[in-house]
Amino acid sequence: MAAPELEQLIGLLSKLPALGPRSARRAVLSLLKQKESKFVPLVGAMQTVLEKVDACPICGNMDTLKPCAICQDEKRDKSVVCVVQDVSDLWALERAGVFKGTYHVLGGVLSALDGVGPDELAIDSLIQKAALGTINEVVLALPATVEGQTTVHYLSDKLSEFNISVSTLSRGVPVGGELDYLDDGTLQLAFKARRNV
Amino acid sequence: MAAPELEQLIGLLSKLPALGPRSARRAVLSLLKQKESKFVPLVGAMQTVLEKVDACPICGNMDTLKPCAICQDEKRDKSVVCVVQDVSDLWALERAGVFKGTYHVLGGVLSALDGVGPDELAIDSLIQKAALGTINEVVLALPATVEGQTTVHYLSDKLSEFNISVSTLSRGVPVGGELDYLDDGTLQLAFKARRNV
Repeated sequence: MAAPELEQLIGLLSKLPALGPRSARRAVLSLLKQKESKFVPLVGAMQTVLEKVDACPICGNMDTLKPCAICQDEKRDKSVVCVVQDVSDLWALERAGVFKGTYHVLGGVLSALDGVGPDELAIDSLIQKAALGTINEVVLALPATVEGQTTVHYLSDKLSEFNISVSTLSRGVPVGGELDYLDDGTLQLAFKARRNV
Repeated sequence: MAAPELEQLIGLLSKLPALGPRSARRAVLSLLKQKESKFVPLVGAMQTVLEKVDACPICGNMDTLKPCAICQDEKRDKSVVCVVQDVSDLWALERAGVFKGTYHVLGGVLSALDGVGPDELAIDSLIQKAALGTINEVVLALPATVEGQTTVHYLSDKLSEFNISVSTLSRGVPVGGELDYLDDGTLQLAFKARRNV
């Protein structure tokens, strides 16, 4: 019912994850109400990102630099590579600030249901990196789902022919987690892997 | 942790209604993954809307035309004005296709808590329209909240000095509504205003 230009924008916005038609409409109206303070800066920021940001050819991170800031950083340990499912996971680990090596973004996990095989993921490039002989350790920081763990097994199998130590994240009770609210699988795992205080 | 350009875009997006920092991040990453098919069209559509769409000087609707398509339409009854809280309500009524008159967007409702008085809303322009003597009926299609009904009382009081019939939307059980799930207030209203079959 709105102008076709508006309907088109609402349609495009509603295809984004986390937005539906109604919330896209609300977003567009809120932008139009504050054109100078909200709409103009947003369009500007979008254009900058569209022009400047691209995937890093080495690790797959999204950045304005090529290679990305992490791959260019002299202080980061190039001999330890953390394999993640997606760029958002890389950012989450960076926010936590625990890891000082470099990354490798797979772009997904193996999933027979969704038709994702090894060729759809950045696995060949990981094996090529491993074959160079400069990597000592690979941390497989993949989701604790069936698909994630299938991918962990597949990758550790592929990496076993090189002299590289392969590890995954520990599992158990998350920080702040009430036992009463945890699923049985996590509780069993945490109990089995209990450690001395 | 991401590039400042990315952080800025995520920050601006996360201020939109219905988006938080996490969903804004997901949206930006999904756009970057499909630059040609998603990101470029979205930026284009945003720019078109930013340049072309503005509030109609007569009714407050958002449109590329000035006055808007509804105000310009010869077939629409200019003597009946439907007062709505926001442009999204106008669009909802247009989608329902029940109303063939013109609109007047208030831009909100009176709210002592939020500090919204008559001067913050497009009430003066409504009274001016009424004073021209060309309007026969005003339909106050405002929300059935305390603030909405306060505004209905305020406006009907203001409009009583003109020879205009003032009405509001009927209240009762919504179409498809199960009685068991309705609040007591709606049930009481619907019972009191029962009508012969």
